[in-house]
Amino acid sequence: MSKKVKTIEGALCAPIGFKAGAIACGIKNPAVQRLDLALVYSEFPTVGSAVYTQNEVRAAPVRLSASYLKSSEPRAIIANSGNANACTGPDGLINARAMSAATARALGLKQREIQVCSTGIIGVPLPIERIEPRIPELAASLGHDSDAAARAIMTSDTCPKSVAVSLKIGGKEIRIGAIAKGAGMINPHMATMLCFVTTDAAVTKAEIVAATRDAVDRSFNRITVDGDMSTNDTVVVMANGKAGNKVVTRGGEGSAEFREALGEVMLELAKRIVADGERVTKLVEVRVCGAASNLDAERVARAVANSKLVKCSWNGNDPNWGRILHAVGYSGARVKEEMVNIHLNGVMATQNGIAAPTDIAKLGEAVRGPEFTVCIDLNIGKGCFSIYTSDISPEYVDFNRSEYSVVASKST
Amino acid sequence: MSKKVKTIEGALCAPIGFKAGAIACGIKNPAVQRLDLALVYSEFPTVGSAVYTQNEVRAAPVRLSASYLKSSEPRAIIANSGNANACTGPDGLINARAMSAATARALGLKQREIQVCSTGIIGVPLPIERIEPRIPELAASLGHDSDAAARAIMTSDTCPKSVAVSLKIGGKEIRIGAIAKGAGMINPHMATMLCFVTTDAAVTKAEIVAATRDAVDRSFNRITVDGDMSTNDTVVVMANGKAGNKVVTRGGEGSAEFREALGEVMLELAKRIVADGERVTKLVEVRVCGAASNLDAERVARAVANSKLVKCSWNGNDPNWGRILHAVGYSGARVKEEMVNIHLNGVMATQNGIAAPTDIAKLGEAVRGPEFTVCIDLNIGKGCFSIYTSDISPEYVDFNRSEYSVVASKST
Repeated sequence: MSKKVKTIEGALCAPIGFKAGAIACGIKNPAVQRLDLALVYSEFPTVGSAVYTQNEVRAAPVRLSASYLKSSEPRAIIANSGNANACTGPDGLINARAMSAATARALGLKQREIQVCSTGIIGVPLPIERIEPRIPELAASLGHDSDAAARAIMTSDTCPKSVAVSLKIGGKEIRIGAIAKGAGMINPHMATMLCFVTTDAAVTKAEIVAATRDAVDRSFNRITVDGDMSTNDTVVVMANGKAGNKVVTRGGEGSAEFREALGEVMLELAKRIVADGERVTKLVEVRVCGAASNLDAERVARAVANSKLVKCSWNGNDPNWGRILHAVGYSGARVKEEMVNIHLNGVMATQNGIAAPTDIAKLGEAVRGPEFTVCIDLNIGKGCFSIYTSDISPEYVDFNRSEYSVVASKST
Repeated sequence: MSKKVKTIEGALCAPIGFKAGAIACGIKNPAVQRLDLALVYSEFPTVGSAVYTQNEVRAAPVRLSASYLKSSEPRAIIANSGNANACTGPDGLINARAMSAATARALGLKQREIQVCSTGIIGVPLPIERIEPRIPELAASLGHDSDAAARAIMTSDTCPKSVAVSLKIGGKEIRIGAIAKGAGMINPHMATMLCFVTTDAAVTKAEIVAATRDAVDRSFNRITVDGDMSTNDTVVVMANGKAGNKVVTRGGEGSAEFREALGEVMLELAKRIVADGERVTKLVEVRVCGAASNLDAERVARAVANSKLVKCSWNGNDPNWGRILHAVGYSGARVKEEMVNIHLNGVMATQNGIAAPTDIAKLGEAVRGPEFTVCIDLNIGKGCFSIYTSDISPEYVDFNRSEYSVVASKST
């Protein structure tokens, strides 16, 4: 975090006027009662914005929420884990609508003021009969602690993810809080990833929309775990203006500070999502510079960050710069092999496209820790890009080859 | 194989006038004497063509061979395993030239008549001192059995790969023989893959160039194991005309038959390469039809064939069509979710974008075998494409995370 923002307690409920709650409905398995239905609520009107998955196959709740946001500001978010309500046809939409209708009734809101999110298994009908009757109880659980909500949206996450910061805008203290879930299928352009953000900052609609897009581009669109992209990804931001600051307009006074803070909140959660990826042991930042363009730098960063062979080598503490260089080569970017330098956590591995005169043990040390950087300098231009990624472990494959069968046989 | 071609014995040496040989030089490890240096030789002048990796980072032997082919027809191929001579800088080129010079001397050819290939670890200097003095012995090993050569180019392959066919062109019997190696890093647009093809067909230079490109597009460019692309891929075809058929010109009489046979030879080897991919247990053909264009069909096929999550599920005999559909969704192709049908080995898994009314046990059965098809019909156009891929296993990751360290410490 930069010096301008201060990390504070309270997560989603740190900003004035927001409440959160959660209950256990047995969505994945009626026999196992774990928190799986979350609610976030603003006591006051908001301006809001959202970014949804770019997957052409979009889950029913994503399609519904996107249509609601076109004609209304959001006041509440209901989210379930254990079932993605994706690839579920017309019944999927009916069930997502039932969730929003019941939530609107319980909170005295309009249906289109509700954002609906689901995460979990694809292609299995949502057990709406276990969800809908419990929504009044969910509303009754609303309070000033968002930890239960952060837990209720977890799927294969091993820990809840939340953060809150405060900063001064025009002399007034404003707060931003957020929770997120990730784990499998974390990819650039978002993944099975949900992130809900609350703020009491006073901002215009245009500013919240631009700031959200900006922050997502600098955070969730720069992480990758397994190169897949989910049907359900959603980031929702609600701002209720209760901090009493002078309203921040698009690009106006306070906008830079607000956007930087929102970006830092999302980047912090994005990094935690990668580090908590399924059976991941390392968080790796791939930084590319010296490319012919920023787009070329992005191509190189994504090729390296998504290379299965590179990710395997990191899992084995193996400083295999040859695999990195060959991914650079097939990235589609303009590359002069004999100009490329690669540093692993600050230690030179590759100089002018060949092995640097560095002791192999020292290189091994550079990639041994749970967090390191890979800096790739193409030395032909000024294009830069960086991305966060992880290793891939045998346990990841083992975990992902058995999940569906087990779940499907239990929940269908 | 189609009815027009007949599988025959003899591999590379089945066509008239070709010889092959191999010796053990201890390139990877002087203490382990396994076959690691291969030679293929045409006793007569040829017309030849080659396709090299599209990786921007090209191994020294690839750069050298490509430059030789611009000014000469090939008469011989020398290939080593155990070291890729890639990312080895100016010394890499010097060493590749030394290989071609010694081979030319031993065979009484010009240096530019030699194609040089290397496969193995990247970024480690080629131990030319173990190779160069042995080349006369390699030349002396030439004979009419190409099995040793097929073995000598293996890296993590578990078995040698060779094939030969005969067919009639204009009433004359012609023969095509080939050997290949693959295993890790098998990808569309080629991979750590070498394939050497000999034929005694009489064809023009223009025809051999076009036929080679065509056959590669229909075979090696349609396989994928781990989505990476190597620095060393090479396909070399040599035709010496000794069958005495009327010369086949580009697109002229006999061209269709010749190209079909060449394509079948390469496709057979390509499929064996996928099936023998590192720790692979399944060979899967992904067929896409009904796309808005052939390019869209290709996008879908590649997205599904390269999805780590899809490949994990196959490893667990898991008919997880939801993961397939979500890969379809992020492929970049035009997709109407509610139109998509998916069949697993002929069993309907997805109908109109949702679960088909098929028993889960029957679907599980469909993906249990060592070979099955995944047919994806987008139902919006006439675009088609198919690709061969594999599952991914925990053992693949385990294998690839340790290889480099072990090899590097042994060979440097």
